[in-house]
Amino acid sequence: MHYELYYWPTIQGRGEFVRLALEEAGVAYVDVARRPAKAGGVPALLKLLDGRTIQHPPLAPPILKSGKLLIAQTANILLYLGQRHRLAPKDEAGRLWVNQLQLTLADFLGEIHDTHHPIAGSLYYEKQKRAARRRAAIFVRERAPKYLGYFERVLKHNGSRKFLAGNKLSYADLSLFQVIAGLHYAFPRMMKRLGKKYQRVMALHGAVAKRPRIAAYLASRRRIPFNQQGIFRRYPELDR
Amino acid sequence: MHYELYYWPTIQGRGEFVRLALEEAGVAYVDVARRPAKAGGVPALLKLLDGRTIQHPPLAPPILKSGKLLIAQTANILLYLGQRHRLAPKDEAGRLWVNQLQLTLADFLGEIHDTHHPIAGSLYYEKQKRAARRRAAIFVRERAPKYLGYFERVLKHNGSRKFLAGNKLSYADLSLFQVIAGLHYAFPRMMKRLGKKYQRVMALHGAVAKRPRIAAYLASRRRIPFNQQGIFRRYPELDR
Repeated sequence: MHYELYYWPTIQGRGEFVRLALEEAGVAYVDVARRPAKAGGVPALLKLLDGRTIQHPPLAPPILKSGKLLIAQTANILLYLGQRHRLAPKDEAGRLWVNQLQLTLADFLGEIHDTHHPIAGSLYYEKQKRAARRRAAIFVRERAPKYLGYFERVLKHNGSRKFLAGNKLSYADLSLFQVIAGLHYAFPRMMKRLGKKYQRVMALHGAVAKRPRIAAYLASRRRIPFNQQGIFRRYPELDR
Repeated sequence: MHYELYYWPTIQGRGEFVRLALEEAGVAYVDVARRPAKAGGVPALLKLLDGRTIQHPPLAPPILKSGKLLIAQTANILLYLGQRHRLAPKDEAGRLWVNQLQLTLADFLGEIHDTHHPIAGSLYYEKQKRAARRRAAIFVRERAPKYLGYFERVLKHNGSRKFLAGNKLSYADLSLFQVIAGLHYAFPRMMKRLGKKYQRVMALHGAVAKRPRIAAYLASRRRIPFNQQGIFRRYPELDR
């Protein structure tokens, strides 16, 4: 049994949340669009997106192929993987809670993306720089503290205080790790300041990075470096 | 068994997607924050949001209380209700597919909201009008056709052609109905044009509105009218 992941080959993007879960689970997967075109590549991804003959067509990647199943939407893919690979609690309440945390992280991620693209994803950053500055200023002042404070509170409330849900790692922990890693890249000044305030969140980020499978992954060439085409972008003028 | 829904009392907002599912299911629920303060009211909602003693604290409404469970995030609540009230397929593939559709609708909804608030939810519309015009123009030209075309294609592919998933109503159909109703309110000019193009989507909207329980709900005082504080707002300057 192996999985096929379809995602844009040059950015971490939303695909990274799926990669982290697959890596932590230690399961075999093929990152299809990163292979040469003769072995899939971007054409294979585009075919799925065009896919007029696909029963459950996806609007956008990431897309996971598991046997006959074709699953899209990051949180949906993680819901599926979480159950199969012990990356989420087994009971209904726990599963719903982890899904809720993941959806809240997705909201956070959307706001992070829109700091540099407040007008449209299809316009260059340079064409929306002024609006980006305004949006990013409010993000730094209001929105990032709101979300980080929320996850800090969740960690504080949770008995274990090491994980977001219960006393075991879940995919929500992996996703929070990724968001924090991205914020360190994109907003280093802000994070220097906020890191002191949200110490449980920062400790979780550090602990996930040290898990053997995640550490091996991060050191490998499978991990695409952060760059200026992804969700997390370093524009110093947005990081005040 | 009855449910308690917690959502802002003066707007449809994201709470409306939950209300539509509860109404179609025909189950008893209390819309807590719409009651007088002595019977709950907004203070009861604020208490949940502040809730330092809550095991699984929500960041934002809608929030559904079901027995001991407290569930937040619209798509998460619908995942739960869909299983319990036959508003989603029973098999795993079908459940994931409906969740995927719902998450795609959530993305669409976020983009609709941001047409009038591209800079920040905390700023008045008047303070971000210029950016809103730019964002809305691209929404009307690119984004709305992209999403509507996608759902049109899903309906076309599906055997029944009356529902998004399989041959039975799911909560994703109810949610698509709500998005179309909101777009008719907020972007009447755009919808007059696009309605001709995406006829299956429009037919689904009409069919859902005629379902006995939904029709009764829409005619009741439980349905809050669209207004200028919600996600869907009618600003003629954004509807070109």
